[in-house]
Amino acid sequence: MTLQPARTVAELQELRSMTGTADGAQRVCWTDTWAEARAWLGNKLAELPVETETDEAGNLWATLRGESERAVVIGGHIDSVPDGGWLDGCLNTLAGLESLRRIAAEGTPPVTVRLVDWADEEGARFGRSLLGSSACAGILEPDEVRELRDRDGVLLPDALREHGVELDEMHQSRSQLESAAAYLELHIEQGPVLERLGLPLGAVVGTFGVERHLIRFTGQAAHSGSTPMADRRDSFAGAARFALEVHEHTRQTGQGAVSTTGSVVIKPGIVTAVAGECEITLDQRHLAADVLAGELAAARAASERIAEEERLDVEWEELWKIDPIPFDERLIDLADEAITEVAGASHRLPSGPLHDAASVALAEIPTVMLFAQSLRGLSHTKQEDTKLEHIELSVAALDRLASKTIDLVSAS
Amino acid sequence: MTLQPARTVAELQELRSMTGTADGAQRVCWTDTWAEARAWLGNKLAELPVETETDEAGNLWATLRGESERAVVIGGHIDSVPDGGWLDGCLNTLAGLESLRRIAAEGTPPVTVRLVDWADEEGARFGRSLLGSSACAGILEPDEVRELRDRDGVLLPDALREHGVELDEMHQSRSQLESAAAYLELHIEQGPVLERLGLPLGAVVGTFGVERHLIRFTGQAAHSGSTPMADRRDSFAGAARFALEVHEHTRQTGQGAVSTTGSVVIKPGIVTAVAGECEITLDQRHLAADVLAGELAAARAASERIAEEERLDVEWEELWKIDPIPFDERLIDLADEAITEVAGASHRLPSGPLHDAASVALAEIPTVMLFAQSLRGLSHTKQEDTKLEHIELSVAALDRLASKTIDLVSAS
Repeated sequence: MTLQPARTVAELQELRSMTGTADGAQRVCWTDTWAEARAWLGNKLAELPVETETDEAGNLWATLRGESERAVVIGGHIDSVPDGGWLDGCLNTLAGLESLRRIAAEGTPPVTVRLVDWADEEGARFGRSLLGSSACAGILEPDEVRELRDRDGVLLPDALREHGVELDEMHQSRSQLESAAAYLELHIEQGPVLERLGLPLGAVVGTFGVERHLIRFTGQAAHSGSTPMADRRDSFAGAARFALEVHEHTRQTGQGAVSTTGSVVIKPGIVTAVAGECEITLDQRHLAADVLAGELAAARAASERIAEEERLDVEWEELWKIDPIPFDERLIDLADEAITEVAGASHRLPSGPLHDAASVALAEIPTVMLFAQSLRGLSHTKQEDTKLEHIELSVAALDRLASKTIDLVSAS
Repeated sequence: MTLQPARTVAELQELRSMTGTADGAQRVCWTDTWAEARAWLGNKLAELPVETETDEAGNLWATLRGESERAVVIGGHIDSVPDGGWLDGCLNTLAGLESLRRIAAEGTPPVTVRLVDWADEEGARFGRSLLGSSACAGILEPDEVRELRDRDGVLLPDALREHGVELDEMHQSRSQLESAAAYLELHIEQGPVLERLGLPLGAVVGTFGVERHLIRFTGQAAHSGSTPMADRRDSFAGAARFALEVHEHTRQTGQGAVSTTGSVVIKPGIVTAVAGECEITLDQRHLAADVLAGELAAARAASERIAEEERLDVEWEELWKIDPIPFDERLIDLADEAITEVAGASHRLPSGPLHDAASVALAEIPTVMLFAQSLRGLSHTKQEDTKLEHIELSVAALDRLASKTIDLVSAS
């Protein structure tokens, strides 16, 4: 049996009609709709000569035993954000399923091949992304998520329990990665780079480090009519200058660094008052730790200089950070080869968003990702899309990468 | 009986302890606390040889009949914002009460003298300020407020009815101003100008015209990690540039013009997304219509140029506007004289905030206001304050202005 990438497109469409609404995909993890999608996936796997199990963290594993226990793992996540797109996460899983079918049809492979469908990549319900893969990689601290609640007040541990997962046992899933020799993941790019280059596919060199901070400028709330311009201590003016200077610095730095000021909250926040307090978030990302540190230092310096010039106070609060995670050089080479063979040309690019692959790489498993071109760079919306021929090419490239990786692992 | 400004201070303190909490004044109009304050005021008025009545708009009038029906009116408002200051509004009413006592003690005045305590100057509960004075001036459109609700969903007409006011009869209060020959109002400045000049009192030359708009910049929401800086259409960057340019233009214009960007709302407004849409409010004020028009035109031009440079769409929505309202030249001269006599020096300044005096001036009654120095320019907060000696000077100045105005009206 040969690979049938068109079947992946048909299965994606089937999943969309089964678990989506007019507003988009609704496979939010730890919900009935997600469980339905998982059951549907389980039925597909039952047709293959694989063993399936759900681990202590809720991750679904399908194992095709090979001559060696050393395993090549292909991963994805069938969960989505609410009102999500039709590709983010499930393309990865279903492309892996198709590759697994092709490999299984050819008999016992030289090494074991496994497909994993990670639980709760999106963190859409409780705000903690990469939940299942973090547990499996041994980097989830249960106490950091124990008190998380969804919008209806339900606690994370209670929602997990409804799906057979005990928070304090999730770390036991770590044994799943003991035999893993390589990890492969396909994903849509969620950005505009490949579309701009006119390329269907790219090899991902790693995930960006992230510095995420809240910056609070404090001035003095004052009446919009009675306070002369010269007497104002306008916290929003400080935040506005800060954002524009940080953007400009990052543009000058180039090299793909990004700085985003996505949330701004003003107090009192009314039309007739000068802004007394303004909180602005900063999300900075880059693949090189030193470049990222330079961006952050420049932002800090700008905030302090601007605060002084505008007669404001400024405070920083760290929201989250993660170091850059470079992928495996040999696997990046193989990904480039696989892409070039199916699409004629490849391009190496970093991933701005995090993915389950980052968790696996942190567990020191050699890892690489493939990106498929996104149209207009959109994701996490029903407008998310990729040309059907590019979806099919991405399945072919993942499968070819799987073959090359099996060869690499079996030869080593 | 001579004027006793210290009594006004004592009465302000009495009112504060009766109707305030640790968070500040709570005399929100159309509430029980406001009604208690009104009843307390009514008891004070009952000791004077005046006729009191509440008009169809809920304004409380006390009338000291003079030899002529032509009336000098002194106004204030005992209502406050929630968590308000101890002076905003009630200083005006209680200073007027003290002047009325002094005039009444001297026998029948040559012209009628009236004190009015306006209803709902603040608009704190339903969002429509100057409600009672607008009705009395004939400029309230009932249909514009009929559907207003408070935070608990109560309709404005229902709240009015609980206090004996029928929305569709409010316009009948207009007859109250038929005999008015002059209108005087004292208020705290609510700004820093007099404090900076070291002067206790100022004569107000008019109220600023106001242009109030919502400006919506629309770009493209995009993932903070996957979208290169050069590909972004960041609506917040547009709003930030707009605010800073408008502030700078207004500073360059000088002449006391003000431009405020007090509310900024971003969508999706999350740390991991470039701002797809940003709504920013603009509140511009000046005493000269042509200067105000120039500021608005400059802001519009800036928004369009910036939108083009940042590849954004921009739309404007008018929220509210009012023309500048100049006060009466002869009364401004008298106010200057009265201030100079009690405090040694005066200063003429415009009012950025609106006041009930603006309603009365729009009804073509000769009008003037006095401002008492505010400490740190603060109001609408429990931190609002004025030195006690300045409060006493302000009572004396209002009383002297009342005498001068009575002389002017009786001689004309």
